Amino acid sequence: MVKHMSKETFMIYGRRPVLEALACRAPIKRLYIQQGTRGEDVQRIEKEAMEKKIPYTWVDKKTLFELVGDELHQGVVAETPSYRYADPEHLLQQAVLQPSTTVLLLDELTDPHNIGAIVRTAAALDVFAVFLPKHRSASVTPAVVKASSGAVFHVPIAQVTNLVVLTERLKDNGFWVYGAAGEGGHDFRSVDYKTRTAFVIGNEGKGIRAGLRKHLDALLAIPMSGGVGSLNASVAAALFMFEAYRARHPIGR
Amino acid sequence: MVKHMSKETFMIYGRRPVLEALACRAPIKRLYIQQGTRGEDVQRIEKEAMEKKIPYTWVDKKTLFELVGDELHQGVVAETPSYRYADPEHLLQQAVLQPSTTVLLLDELTDPHNIGAIVRTAAALDVFAVFLPKHRSASVTPAVVKASSGAVFHVPIAQVTNLVVLTERLKDNGFWVYGAAGEGGHDFRSVDYKTRTAFVIGNEGKGIRAGLRKHLDALLAIPMSGGVGSLNASVAAALFMFEAYRARHPIGR
Repeated sequence: MVKHMSKETFMIYGRRPVLEALACRAPIKRLYIQQGTRGEDVQRIEKEAMEKKIPYTWVDKKTLFELVGDELHQGVVAETPSYRYADPEHLLQQAVLQPSTTVLLLDELTDPHNIGAIVRTAAALDVFAVFLPKHRSASVTPAVVKASSGAVFHVPIAQVTNLVVLTERLKDNGFWVYGAAGEGGHDFRSVDYKTRTAFVIGNEGKGIRAGLRKHLDALLAIPMSGGVGSLNASVAAALFMFEAYRARHPIGR
Repeated sequence: MVKHMSKETFMIYGRRPVLEALACRAPIKRLYIQQGTRGEDVQRIEKEAMEKKIPYTWVDKKTLFELVGDELHQGVVAETPSYRYADPEHLLQQAVLQPSTTVLLLDELTDPHNIGAIVRTAAALDVFAVFLPKHRSASVTPAVVKASSGAVFHVPIAQVTNLVVLTERLKDNGFWVYGAAGEGGHDFRSVDYKTRTAFVIGNEGKGIRAGLRKHLDALLAIPMSGGVGSLNASVAAALFMFEAYRARHPIGR
């Protein structure tokens, strides 16, 4: 069945990612389901495929592995043309209409697990958009889709050529742009996030590039104990996102 | 050189993990460094190896990959006999002496990335100990050590036979034991964490087992937006840990 596959394909794999792609009407060309795979999720996927008239094929485990090159497919794969990024210009125009919102800028992150986990948290905590640089950054690959648990279909993600230009435009439009610093920043709990907020998360090893850093309104740090501690990029990003969420969602509302 | 390797080996790989193992005096039998590998970290590793009289060998990339079965070795591998778990009884005796502390119970987590990221956050946010069940849970494997960025050498980790028994003992000793619930729990911000606190983090797919759930003092939830959201286990654990940390470390202290 693999011969149907065209060269322009983007394989979504894993049950949750495939379900989210179906729910968000991603343009799925064909579904592949592993022979003998059972369970509520797979039944839902089959049912949705029939309703949406998406062809599906039962294949063996080896074929699925060959399609995605990852063992974490959980028996389901959806073939799509490509991941659809949002238009950054359009996103920016929408964002500046929000009196109180959060956007994320990921500065040259390279680990698909981190990007996926960050997008998943962004979807759960009401982040308006995620911006990635076009170069020297992981893009939205099938592994990112899997790690996001399908959340890439719920939060708009845009690629931009230059994060410095984006930072300046956000500032011009009433955003406060904060960098997540490993150390040396202000305590991230001391900021008022009820307004328009952008967080810049730096590369896993190097942090935020100096050229971008100097354009930011402030560097913020998460307080930690001792000298040995450091946080994973997706964990740090989550703590920042929740701090902004907390300011806008007091307890009991 | 691989012929020196005994059958009882635990391969620590990655620069940060190897540096942390050296700093914490893990019993390293031999270091393997990739030919041509350079950089500050590698120089420090070489220097420490000489000071601590640990034999080290330069090997090619292929040999390193064969030693660890993972490409993320960053050119350095340390051979140790095994990971040394802490004694749960001893940990518990120490924990109950703390008037204000946090411990974590991981209920059958299976993803090494999650366990590693959780331990890394625990080290940074002053968590006293992490408890894992002996069965149906990932143990501290080399992949967990890598994902923890070496933090497994900074936070004591103990394996226990039965998390229910541990839960009851913690409760008897003045701990409040809270379960991280996806939904249906109390807002996790409404709790006073200044006392002895234990968080139970459930399995990535199934959450906390029903048999353990009914022994907990309360279920707590992280507020989220919309119906689509859910958080990665390591992200949820981090938000809980930081909430306890926040209660004990007000801004500016």
